[in-house]
Amino acid sequence: MSRTLIRNVAVLVVPEHGECRVDEAQDVHIQDNLITAITPTASTGATGVAGVAELAGVAEPAEVAGAAGVRGEMDVVDGTGLVAVPGLVNSHTHSPMVMMRGAAEDLSIEDWFNRRIWPMEVNLTPERVRVGARLACAEMLLAGVTTFVDHYFHADQIAAAAIESGIRADLAPTYFSSASQDGIDAAIDTTRGLSRLHPRITASLGPHATYTVTDEDLKRTADLARAESLRIHLHAAETDDQTQASLDNHGVTPIQVLNRTGVLDAGALIAHGCGIHESDLPILQRYADRTTVASCPKVYLKLAMGEVTPIKGLQAAGVPVGVGTDGAAVHNTLDVWEAIRMVALTQKQREHDAEWMTLSDTLRLATRGSAAAAGLADHIGVLEPGRQADIALVDLAAPHNQPVHDPRAALVYSVRASDVVTVLVAGQVVVRDRSLTTMDLTEVLADAKSLAHTLVDLSKGGAIQHYAP
Amino acid sequence: MSRTLIRNVAVLVVPEHGECRVDEAQDVHIQDNLITAITPTASTGATGVAGVAELAGVAEPAEVAGAAGVRGEMDVVDGTGLVAVPGLVNSHTHSPMVMMRGAAEDLSIEDWFNRRIWPMEVNLTPERVRVGARLACAEMLLAGVTTFVDHYFHADQIAAAAIESGIRADLAPTYFSSASQDGIDAAIDTTRGLSRLHPRITASLGPHATYTVTDEDLKRTADLARAESLRIHLHAAETDDQTQASLDNHGVTPIQVLNRTGVLDAGALIAHGCGIHESDLPILQRYADRTTVASCPKVYLKLAMGEVTPIKGLQAAGVPVGVGTDGAAVHNTLDVWEAIRMVALTQKQREHDAEWMTLSDTLRLATRGSAAAAGLADHIGVLEPGRQADIALVDLAAPHNQPVHDPRAALVYSVRASDVVTVLVAGQVVVRDRSLTTMDLTEVLADAKSLAHTLVDLSKGGAIQHYAP
Repeated sequence: MSRTLIRNVAVLVVPEHGECRVDEAQDVHIQDNLITAITPTASTGATGVAGVAELAGVAEPAEVAGAAGVRGEMDVVDGTGLVAVPGLVNSHTHSPMVMMRGAAEDLSIEDWFNRRIWPMEVNLTPERVRVGARLACAEMLLAGVTTFVDHYFHADQIAAAAIESGIRADLAPTYFSSASQDGIDAAIDTTRGLSRLHPRITASLGPHATYTVTDEDLKRTADLARAESLRIHLHAAETDDQTQASLDNHGVTPIQVLNRTGVLDAGALIAHGCGIHESDLPILQRYADRTTVASCPKVYLKLAMGEVTPIKGLQAAGVPVGVGTDGAAVHNTLDVWEAIRMVALTQKQREHDAEWMTLSDTLRLATRGSAAAAGLADHIGVLEPGRQADIALVDLAAPHNQPVHDPRAALVYSVRASDVVTVLVAGQVVVRDRSLTTMDLTEVLADAKSLAHTLVDLSKGGAIQHYAP
Repeated sequence: MSRTLIRNVAVLVVPEHGECRVDEAQDVHIQDNLITAITPTASTGATGVAGVAELAGVAEPAEVAGAAGVRGEMDVVDGTGLVAVPGLVNSHTHSPMVMMRGAAEDLSIEDWFNRRIWPMEVNLTPERVRVGARLACAEMLLAGVTTFVDHYFHADQIAAAAIESGIRADLAPTYFSSASQDGIDAAIDTTRGLSRLHPRITASLGPHATYTVTDEDLKRTADLARAESLRIHLHAAETDDQTQASLDNHGVTPIQVLNRTGVLDAGALIAHGCGIHESDLPILQRYADRTTVASCPKVYLKLAMGEVTPIKGLQAAGVPVGVGTDGAAVHNTLDVWEAIRMVALTQKQREHDAEWMTLSDTLRLATRGSAAAAGLADHIGVLEPGRQADIALVDLAAPHNQPVHDPRAALVYSVRASDVVTVLVAGQVVVRDRSLTTMDLTEVLADAKSLAHTLVDLSKGGAIQHYAP
């Protein structure tokens, strides 16, 4: 049994509704992988900071006292001057694509897929995927990202990197219908295997998209998902062009495809959804208890996709929305702080309403929403007793955050990933004083550097898929 | 006479047209405030890296040799593994507003002005402005911003902070027509005084905007500007709503107002210009040799202004465009890297064209464009002999930039302000190994913290102005 105490830290509190707040001077008590209590610092029966009493409801007072009694054996992290936030969640990414960072710029979505990414991906090998995933895990952990929701090839290698690094992950092994049946079956078997691998790893089924996987394969996937209690993570209605093409070619929207194939009934994480129409919302509402959408707006602007995710409509339909980066071959970073800020900015722009997507709503989306997108709504995303101890400690002392009139504003609009000091996942300190404790960063970077050229080599010709939605 | 040598650094080269590039392994030779030569590292008559020969054209070979001969007396900065970029320019800001960072969130533009900012600004005092400006200079220098173009009250205090910190600044003392004639005259006198104060300080006339300064006062300002060879820096056509209101109330666009009052003829930096109409472009084209526009897109999204600056049209009209942050009371940071990225992203979105605002075009805008916006087109913005030695050294070694397939992509889409290691302004090392050399940061932060509450105090009532364009 391991015990950790984060002493004297300000804690971001994200209620289900209403205003978020930051409670000053709290102690966060952790036992093994869980938060057991959050109590006012140095209080011995004092009334404490507003709101703490209710948070501490789950805690066992005797246990907390016991922990205090053996403080010498506890890992005590000094939180003075820091803000504890729920570890960030990257709710949609392709982590190994960090290996192609900056290698496909200033391209239309068609050229990005057909002239760069899918031709480059003929170069994928298990080793290269693992090296990329290790780099991605390092980047994310150092930035306070404690969970990522991934969709990629050789997912067993990504799992290995995640387990080694200490990060939490939900992994969907990608497949196209253009693959052989054996290829599809292998991806599905990988999902099955991953879901039993490690307490920090969950797995989802990963059909690529409604335009690269046939209705028949989607139906098979949905049946399997229901039978084996697996989630489905896929791309759908990424752009309005895709929705129009689907209507033109099949007479239905991508969301209607997900409905008629049973994918929505089985439960799905939909990546992007910028092309979700008003008429799709009642369908999604029917499955709101098992549907989530991940929004990655930097990508929508960069690829000039024309729309961003219609979050207002989705929220009105009760569908949880999370924040993601997509792969670094287009987002260029796996920086979820950047993604959160872009969600707030682009949503205000989309709705022509500066009073919409408030600080509190943005932080709720980034925490509770992203936890739901990861399929972990009851386990992560909120700092309270009984939740996983996935925590990022953020230092707002640097000039770009000062003075702090409102720490919530700092977290949404001025913080940098480099302000993250210490990170815990499942109670383990994986970043301490801005350094990884779990991996040798020099080695991770050297490996990535030595293999980087192999990933962007177009000399072999061919492509793993063609984009023509 | 002081000499500095930046050894073995990669140099960002930004030509007037065509592709930017990064030349590896260069030595940047600096004498007093100027770059005197850029030569391949450790070359003794070797042919060197492509493009360097032409850059070194201005250099005196004898001087360079002489410098090498007295290396012991030179400040030698090791640039190994770093990229030298032209010091960034914040081409429109209100620096002391860092004191209100995070104090006016989730508000419409009307409420932002009328319920928060202008009521808060009744609290301005010279001391508070100076404390804010010192914090702003610290934030900017640490992020590699070497010049800022400011528009604010008590500009003499801002000049003092700029001089102390070592940053370069163009300062426009703000005035409204609602002020007394004495108030306007005092602002104009401040401009005159500042323009003779220090080699790193230039000054502009600062009428606030077309909707807060009368045509008569704009005419007086334009006459004065022509007579005394001063530039005018003002807000105009910030939103399309403002342009519509101007058309409804006066039958002319804000740009037409600038034209008929002589402001364009005198030479102007126009902040924002999101409401510039197609029909305004031929007017601006006529004064393209003395007109520039500053674009601060994070603000346009955050305030849901509906439009961003029409950069494509302005560039077609030959009008230089720079990048800025606006004040931190709405942008929340003075991070020009963030502003540059937002320009690229929002311009691709605006034009529905992912192939527009390329890496090279974005970097050109951020360097040559912003130098023009600062009125310093011939002095800063490019690293070449004869230019001011305003240089930021950036480290791309951290995981979020790796691997580096294209350093230009890293500079636009993945770099963080915290990657800036060393900064020179006019040949002086003002940031070394991520620390300010010119000011005591602890003191700067403590001063800001102690006065922060005084700036956001709304108890006095009143406002310095009312927003009703």
